Amino acid sequence: MTSVSIREVAPRDGLQNEEPIPTDAKVALIDALSETGVRRIEAVSFVHPKAIPQMADADEVWSRARKHPEIRYSALIPNTRGAQRALAAGFREIEVVVSASDTHNRRNLNRSTGESLDDIASLVPLIHEAGATVEVIVATSFGCPFEGDIDPDRVAGIVSRVRADGADRIAFGDTTGMATPRRVRDLLSAVRPDLLHFHNTRGTGLANILTALELGVTEFDASVGGIGGCPYAPGASGNVATEEVVHMLHDMGIDTGIDLDRLIEVAGEAEKLLGRTLPSGVLRAGPRTRLV
Amino acid sequence: MTSVSIREVAPRDGLQNEEPIPTDAKVALIDALSETGVRRIEAVSFVHPKAIPQMADADEVWSRARKHPEIRYSALIPNTRGAQRALAAGFREIEVVVSASDTHNRRNLNRSTGESLDDIASLVPLIHEAGATVEVIVATSFGCPFEGDIDPDRVAGIVSRVRADGADRIAFGDTTGMATPRRVRDLLSAVRPDLLHFHNTRGTGLANILTALELGVTEFDASVGGIGGCPYAPGASGNVATEEVVHMLHDMGIDTGIDLDRLIEVAGEAEKLLGRTLPSGVLRAGPRTRLV
Repeated sequence: MTSVSIREVAPRDGLQNEEPIPTDAKVALIDALSETGVRRIEAVSFVHPKAIPQMADADEVWSRARKHPEIRYSALIPNTRGAQRALAAGFREIEVVVSASDTHNRRNLNRSTGESLDDIASLVPLIHEAGATVEVIVATSFGCPFEGDIDPDRVAGIVSRVRADGADRIAFGDTTGMATPRRVRDLLSAVRPDLLHFHNTRGTGLANILTALELGVTEFDASVGGIGGCPYAPGASGNVATEEVVHMLHDMGIDTGIDLDRLIEVAGEAEKLLGRTLPSGVLRAGPRTRLV
Repeated sequence: MTSVSIREVAPRDGLQNEEPIPTDAKVALIDALSETGVRRIEAVSFVHPKAIPQMADADEVWSRARKHPEIRYSALIPNTRGAQRALAAGFREIEVVVSASDTHNRRNLNRSTGESLDDIASLVPLIHEAGATVEVIVATSFGCPFEGDIDPDRVAGIVSRVRADGADRIAFGDTTGMATPRRVRDLLSAVRPDLLHFHNTRGTGLANILTALELGVTEFDASVGGIGGCPYAPGASGNVATEEVVHMLHDMGIDTGIDLDRLIEVAGEAEKLLGRTLPSGVLRAGPRTRLV
């Protein structure tokens, strides 16, 4: 393996799990990330502002962000209304979520996994007709906080269903940080996604990525600075920090297109913006090549 | 691989890198760890109190700690005087350090690596005559903050020398957290230690251990709660947290003899004792098997 594709998710998944910040700051974060060499950015989600106030200004953020022609920007949507907003805003990569755990899907989306799959089946043609692609993110793929490990065959069944319904890409989400190297092997031996989204909740973030690399996965989500951990649980971390992922990959001789030094600068700016210590060792210590 | 041997280093390596705590608290930490099922504990170091005030009460700590016959306790020593104190205190496992980097050895020990190797050669018979064993910890094995990566052949040469001089065991120390999966493979393809000591400074702690497991290493140091990070650099972490290591290993079906729930309780007690948030995700979030 000589290269890996990183999707930077701090502007959407990261900020959605932090205290709200001003619109200007969101635009500045997207613009700064666009200058790091990263080739994919999850920019915003089009959700109801009462459900997720952090994304209430998604239209304005996206209209003001500088779009680089070589970067693929994506938006998350929960339903038809969200899809219409994302398409009207010009997005050509749309993400939608379904949970592998029925209990989690009901708690999160107030319907069964099967009902959500039906919703996705009706969303896909709408999005395709507008010339955009659909990525289905299968949440709780690596474990559910209510049900524990989900049978890999059940995850595989969901993947088969959404592929049959026209999904262009599949991502597996490590929703509450239950992924481990063992679980990654168990799941990926049954079914392969296009992209993996790991958390570092229990310290295994990079070990999970290492395991997935060995199994041939080449696309990963990551969040600069590890943005997205719950600020009310000090030390708890959500998304893997992009600079920690890139640092390990570059050390292995795997290209990401990203300028690590620039990325670390953006992480530092994000830390000041959020006003809390971000859970990123590489932000704190710098890369191993930075000698005294 | 069905089992891994963990050496718990919080009482020595951990506390040596924290603000000093009372003697009672040190004794309580050792006693609590002895009840977790861990089979090896690095208990104290016998160093000059002016150099390392955190270990000034090593004799008292050790005399008051409850010794479990099934646990191997070890002590670190810097010189003949330290060795005499450790042996007089009853230790039968002695550790001594030399740095693979000449620059680091001079800064740390005020002599060349070669001079330190001569010192070790004269210490080994002294320790053996008292019926104890000697472990040589090769510091900066995974990288030196002054010199960068040390040639694996140089590390191999140091290992050959100390083995010829009678060292019973070899450990490789990741002194400033420069180990990565790539460096672990590079170094271990040249020379094998008995035990590995990783830090989690740049997020790769568990990824390094995973890599070493794949290469057949079965002995690792770890520090409960990740104790040992510099308290002046928030978020920076030193030693890998024992509960994070044990959590990943048990999930892989690898036995450690350790009761993870009890270990997490000890980490929580240690956090209160030190009065700072410890860098351990498993302490914060609990094991992945703890469902809602």
